[in-house]
Amino acid sequence: MGSKSDLKIMSAAAELLRQFNVPYDITLVSPHRTPHRMVEYAESARKRGLRVLICGGGGAAHLPGMVAAFTTLPVIGVPINSSLSIQGLDSILSMIQMPAGTPVATVGLDNAANAAILAIQILALNNARLADSLEKYRTTLKDRVMRTIEELRKGGFQDDV
Amino acid sequence: MGSKSDLKIMSAAAELLRQFNVPYDITLVSPHRTPHRMVEYAESARKRGLRVLICGGGGAAHLPGMVAAFTTLPVIGVPINSSLSIQGLDSILSMIQMPAGTPVATVGLDNAANAAILAIQILALNNARLADSLEKYRTTLKDRVMRTIEELRKGGFQDDV
Amino acid sequence: MGSKSDLKIMSAAAELLRQFNVPYDITLVSPHRTPHRMVEYAESARKRGLRVLICGGGGAAHLPGMVAAFTTLPVIGVPINSSLSIQGLDSILSMIQMPAGTPVATVGLDNAANAAILAIQILALNNARLADSLEKYRTTLKDRVMRTIEELRKGGFQDDV
Amino acid sequence: MGSKSDLKIMSAAAELLRQFNVPYDITLVSPHRTPHRMVEYAESARKRGLRVLICGGGGAAHLPGMVAAFTTLPVIGVPINSSLSIQGLDSILSMIQMPAGTPVATVGLDNAANAAILAIQILALNNARLADSLEKYRTTLKDRVMRTIEELRKGGFQDDV
Amino acid sequence: MGSKSDLKIMSAAAELLRQFNVPYDITLVSPHRTPHRMVEYAESARKRGLRVLICGGGGAAHLPGMVAAFTTLPVIGVPINSSLSIQGLDSILSMIQMPAGTPVATVGLDNAANAAILAIQILALNNARLADSLEKYRTTLKDRVMRTIEELRKGGFQDDV
Amino acid sequence: MGSKSDLKIMSAAAELLRQFNVPYDITLVSPHRTPHRMVEYAESARKRGLRVLICGGGGAAHLPGMVAAFTTLPVIGVPINSSLSIQGLDSILSMIQMPAGTPVATVGLDNAANAAILAIQILALNNARLADSLEKYRTTLKDRVMRTIEELRKGGFQDDV
Amino acid sequence: MGSKSDLKIMSAAAELLRQFNVPYDITLVSPHRTPHRMVEYAESARKRGLRVLICGGGGAAHLPGMVAAFTTLPVIGVPINSSLSIQGLDSILSMIQMPAGTPVATVGLDNAANAAILAIQILALNNARLADSLEKYRTTLKDRVMRTIEELRKGGFQDDV
Amino acid sequence: MGSKSDLKIMSAAAELLRQFNVPYDITLVSPHRTPHRMVEYAESARKRGLRVLICGGGGAAHLPGMVAAFTTLPVIGVPINSSLSIQGLDSILSMIQMPAGTPVATVGLDNAANAAILAIQILALNNARLADSLEKYRTTLKDRVMRTIEELRKGGFQDDV
Repeated sequence: MGSKSDLKIMSAAAELLRQFNVPYDITLVSPHRTPHRMVEYAESARKRGLRVLICGGGGAAHLPGMVAAFTTLPVIGVPINSSLSIQGLDSILSMIQMPAGTPVATVGLDNAANAAILAIQILALNNARLADSLEKYRTTLKDRVMRTIEELRKGGFQDDV
Repeated sequence: MGSKSDLKIMSAAAELLRQFNVPYDITLVSPHRTPHRMVEYAESARKRGLRVLICGGGGAAHLPGMVAAFTTLPVIGVPINSSLSIQGLDSILSMIQMPAGTPVATVGLDNAANAAILAIQILALNNARLADSLEKYRTTLKDRVMRTIEELRKGGFQDDV
Repeated sequence: MGSKSDLKIMSAAAELLRQFNVPYDITLVSPHRTPHRMVEYAESARKRGLRVLICGGGGAAHLPGMVAAFTTLPVIGVPINSSLSIQGLDSILSMIQMPAGTPVATVGLDNAANAAILAIQILALNNARLADSLEKYRTTLKDRVMRTIEELRKGGFQDDV
Repeated sequence: MGSKSDLKIMSAAAELLRQFNVPYDITLVSPHRTPHRMVEYAESARKRGLRVLICGGGGAAHLPGMVAAFTTLPVIGVPINSSLSIQGLDSILSMIQMPAGTPVATVGLDNAANAAILAIQILALNNARLADSLEKYRTTLKDRVMRTIEELRKGGFQDDV
Repeated sequence: MGSKSDLKIMSAAAELLRQFNVPYDITLVSPHRTPHRMVEYAESARKRGLRVLICGGGGAAHLPGMVAAFTTLPVIGVPINSSLSIQGLDSILSMIQMPAGTPVATVGLDNAANAAILAIQILALNNARLADSLEKYRTTLKDRVMRTIEELRKGGFQDDV
Repeated sequence: MGSKSDLKIMSAAAELLRQFNVPYDITLVSPHRTPHRMVEYAESARKRGLRVLICGGGGAAHLPGMVAAFTTLPVIGVPINSSLSIQGLDSILSMIQMPAGTPVATVGLDNAANAAILAIQILALNNARLADSLEKYRTTLKDRVMRTIEELRKGGFQDDV
Repeated sequence: MGSKSDLKIMSAAAELLRQFNVPYDITLVSPHRTPHRMVEYAESARKRGLRVLICGGGGAAHLPGMVAAFTTLPVIGVPINSSLSIQGLDSILSMIQMPAGTPVATVGLDNAANAAILAIQILALNNARLADSLEKYRTTLKDRVMRTIEELRKGGFQDDV
Repeated sequence: MGSKSDLKIMSAAAELLRQFNVPYDITLVSPHRTPHRMVEYAESARKRGLRVLICGGGGAAHLPGMVAAFTTLPVIGVPINSSLSIQGLDSILSMIQMPAGTPVATVGLDNAANAAILAIQILALNNARLADSLEKYRTTLKDRVMRTIEELRKGGFQDDV
């Protein structure tokens, strides 16, 4: 995260990683206030055993793009609609529009959950347990929809599929 | 790709995958004109040995998001500024703004190269050769900048770093 | 609807259909969490006797476009300004900008009422009762404006038409 | 059409209607230069036997919305990215954002083909021949994709689905 | 006004006209719910002695543009950020982007006060009293700023101009 | 005009004023390069007998708003999509969004013709000849549409109104 | 400031200047309500010993651009998301898009703090004390991040950098 | 510059600096391809005697913001509408929307000339020759407008100021 205020958004990613039993670090790395820490964090990431980096930020959100410049690990960006942001459009565009060579895998606005799922999908490529957990998670999502449909039916909603 | 007209953008991804010796399929899967093919393609992807899916599309670009609904493999989206697109903004927003649970790793507008690099970064997590190639690619990018700087210097540009 | 949270918007459509005595189903069909249900729902729609499909969704709103890919019934889309949406602009663009061949009849943001009226206009083409009801509905809308004008006049507003 | 310059866009709709053997009128009805003609055209539409109205326009595109105010027939709007338009965004928003009660079924920017298909889908609800033609049209669209895939395969593209 | 809900915005125009002793009508004329009233209102406006027409509306705001089609009096448009509007951008674009021949003098979002001032500026061209009142109004605006500056100075703000 | 490059847009206004026999000045008044000239131009406008001011500009288009600050004459703004403009959106917003008290009557992007018509509508309030000319101009616009319809009919277009 | 309502935003700049012991004036200069004051203020600024001008404004924010036209001192613009502004986009575009020759150094939306820091950076070029204070300020920003990291660690957040 | 393709825009800044006899370096510093060079360039800038840094970039334009993180010198950003940029909106927003503490003085899209003038205005605060040159430059800009007015007059344009 680039700022502590991002925590209320980014904690959704932490929660999901915990549910999937994926070990993670969560910390602050401000590209503009602690730029050397950012360089060090990104450059040492692979050696420290990190495999996927999730970076959230709002406004001129430089964190994921700059981290991507200092590592070749996959970097996932979570654009945040922070207090000074222009409806999150600045956050999205300053993350996604990276030059060729240093991609940021950008997910939806404030959608830290999707950053976690994407990270797990990446890790699951070589982790049968995670691949299995993802399938179960999908089933859970589906079951939750189906249960809601049941409730709606009981509430009088018609549905003949 | 959702349409043959996407080929002129998406071929940049194919080219990079070839350079990195990463085997790939490239084909058309139209979510609206061949929807069953899309379902089948996405659902069978993991079994057929695919590991990362790169989907390009323009306008109401549903391909990556729908593919992501039918597989738990990582899906990368390349928003394309196609002929009917509104400056590519529709393509970006209809890819990136996925609901929680089915992320699309969206890269920049028309930036198929970054989709390929992102795919390679993901595969490199368990492939030392690819990880090494990525480092060399980065060095190449850097060297190209440094050579350009040399040329600019010869052309009279001052630079004392 | 793609999500239960869409209900507070989409119920306006249900209410109008009820007022016009048009039988309807209302249910959840999530394109990303229950994609097979969506395929089944759309493909069987004509056989089950459905005539017009109204689909609401927010963000990367793929439901109406994907339903339109699996049926040739008219599909009406209601873009919803949901909690993660960017002022609804993402919802509008990801519905309306469909490729040639699979249109989505998109109405205004959060305007489920207009989806219902459009559906009734379509059904009224072969239903004299509905055509008549539509004329009465228009008269009601007009009368309501005229009554408001009366109230404004009583409140001292000048108006010499 | 609101202006003759719209013809190069709107003729795609005419062409499709011809292909489907759907009789149609095509003419100019400018909401701002021939407003009485517009009123007369819209009010008499149902009596003259018209069943669906397709209206194209660019900029402050008032034609479909105003026609919808004078008839209860379904009105389809084609937003056009005309020479004075701001990337077509003005055309889309001034068509789609209608108040409750008078919907405009808006299709994609410059996408007159989709307006025609939508009209045919509406008419096909009570026309078995058209319903059948729509299925065939879909098959044609699909076949065209499949043939392109064949060509790509012959050109060396790999695809194992 | 196109809708009673516009009153809370448009009353600012009425208030200013009252302050300047400019007689005015204020009423509802919905282009979509009372289209004939709109035609009649606009066509008879000059004969009834109206000189400038101020029309407010939100979303697909067709009122000022359509009124302008039925009269050659100057028409001023007030784009309103109504409940279904997309930040008022739809309201602005659907008013301002009129085709050549039927202008709408569009003022700022929700800025009914400026519509009134513009109307008064137009009327003042042949009304010395109004021209004088406008000069006094400007002086009042200026004096109010200068008094605020005095207050700020007393509150410790430095200012050496 | 703020810049000579605006001439190719603004000349459409001059042409229309000539057609209506309305005397006019046309000159350059750059708010940023000749600010004193702008102050003098605006302040002396009423005394010199000018009655309506039409100001064109692109980008951060300050000319109409600043002219409006130095005169109480009606000021019409023509937002221009100049070479450095962002699709004209900057030009529109920096003209239309004036604070209460100093309106700019903004017309459509690059639509100098509408600025001229609006000016003529304003002058026609006290000029019967101009009022008459405006009616004839409207008839001309309508006749041109009707002639185009005739041509379309001859070209085989069907139209039974 | 162009309006007293800007004070709640602009006071953050005043606060920072006070912290850095940089003498400053703060006052109202409305480009539209007190245009002569604006001319006088800008023209006399250099002689009165002012060195950098910070101007805030919302909507059609003409203050910084017009001040820049009357002085050759550096002018910093703070776009403000005021009550009538369209998400601040109008404020940003009407400040930043100045024609060549009269730049406005525009900072982020509502970001008066950055205007102050930029002013101090400019003054620090010839003021060793300020240059030193800026370095300390940076250290403070960094220390604050590091302390937050400590707190997060104590709260159980993992972080192995 | 972040890329050699920026040269065709940024050379306008170099040209102006040359005209004002302001010594400058011009080189490439890619934040994503040569990130260490960027860190070194920014950190050593003050010691090497640089006083103002002008950084151009397009898309996710991180160069000025990241340079600003590694130096306390004033940093001027030139957003560039490069080939992959979305009308330059991404470039503007990813430069201007910096967090509090590290401002980027952003000028208009592709407006490198204004970056140079702003830099000269900053340097002129302690350089009487530059201050004088700026006044002369302003006079030149004004004279050029006045000469154009003369030409327009000779071409028949009326202007009685």
